[in-house]
Amino acid sequence: MNYREVTTTGEYMARLETGADWREEIETLAADVDAEAGWFSALGSVEDAEIWFYDQDDKEYQSVTFDEPLEVAACVGNVSLLDGDLFAHTHAVLSRRNGQALAGHINAGTVFAGELYFRAFETPLTRERDEDTELDLWL
Amino acid sequence: MNYREVTTTGEYMARLETGADWREEIETLAADVDAEAGWFSALGSVEDAEIWFYDQDDKEYQSVTFDEPLEVAACVGNVSLLDGDLFAHTHAVLSRRNGQALAGHINAGTVFAGELYFRAFETPLTRERDEDTELDLWL
Amino acid sequence: MNYREVTTTGEYMARLETGADWREEIETLAADVDAEAGWFSALGSVEDAEIWFYDQDDKEYQSVTFDEPLEVAACVGNVSLLDGDLFAHTHAVLSRRNGQALAGHINAGTVFAGELYFRAFETPLTRERDEDTELDLWL
Repeated sequence: MNYREVTTTGEYMARLETGADWREEIETLAADVDAEAGWFSALGSVEDAEIWFYDQDDKEYQSVTFDEPLEVAACVGNVSLLDGDLFAHTHAVLSRRNGQALAGHINAGTVFAGELYFRAFETPLTRERDEDTELDLWL
Repeated sequence: MNYREVTTTGEYMARLETGADWREEIETLAADVDAEAGWFSALGSVEDAEIWFYDQDDKEYQSVTFDEPLEVAACVGNVSLLDGDLFAHTHAVLSRRNGQALAGHINAGTVFAGELYFRAFETPLTRERDEDTELDLWL
Repeated sequence: MNYREVTTTGEYMARLETGADWREEIETLAADVDAEAGWFSALGSVEDAEIWFYDQDDKEYQSVTFDEPLEVAACVGNVSLLDGDLFAHTHAVLSRRNGQALAGHINAGTVFAGELYFRAFETPLTRERDEDTELDLWL
């Protein structure tokens, strides 16, 4: 296991904009507060969602789209640099009206309402291709 | 997107009381430590749960009740002021014996066991009616 | 409700090792940074998972094993001492290719990729048998 101690430079509460993209809003916040690395957790609701599942054998993402209103019951992830750009690696648990839960890597989703807690780190996190998993990982 | 930097005044670990209400326990902790704003994450189990889903068209909450023991696999939310009272906006992911996950806004649930991490903010968060979503949002 | 204020001694970002056990990796990190207490959140994916559900009547855990690749959509928990050993009480929400979510207490799971944020506390947390729930709880 690789780990590093990190130093927090600021803590932020954000309200994601109705109609914007869930993941892009997080990247916009990171850019606005000049953070190239950070950790976040969030909750809210979306009007739709594109969820990715990583195929561990084929080593590629597969996508499922839910074109329906969903609660965001939990959302967790981190901000790092990927190919020089800010990237919010974002996983989420969503739910339907009857309580059924859906989950995975959320690539996109239209914000209905979103509340986010973000910790910005001084310590840089840069993703690079990992040979074993063929994922872009930091450390 | 609206955001603000926040200042943490204290961090707390709490064990929620068996038989008490999950959300009220969080509000009680906030009151006890004099926090009108904060962020939390939690895990545990409940004896039952009332889950809300916000109808984005009708602009009202719909309720589903699960009258059965459930694990609390993840719980995330924040404390703010709503009409002058402390309010813990609380989302949760629950699960059944076979691993099936249920999720949403948890309005109520009888604690079986609960472990909570809470950060109290000096920065106030006050909810007001948002015209677009007809939700009470801060910022 | 029992609660205590805690003091953070360090914050860490870790990348869990592919092929290792998800929960043991967290305990290894805690040991490496000399933390007998802490709080974490995480995301990633596993190759399989053993999920526990606590039977609130029979007062014992029941186990379900999923022998398939799963995303870790959310993971939350804490580190404490149990019978003198470091123990990571770990809950997680997992998901299948079609987005279906599974969740509960994760006892074991083979890491495919994992990203963890950990706060180490100076304040000790020691689990002891609770008579009401027959669980090992701190405070």
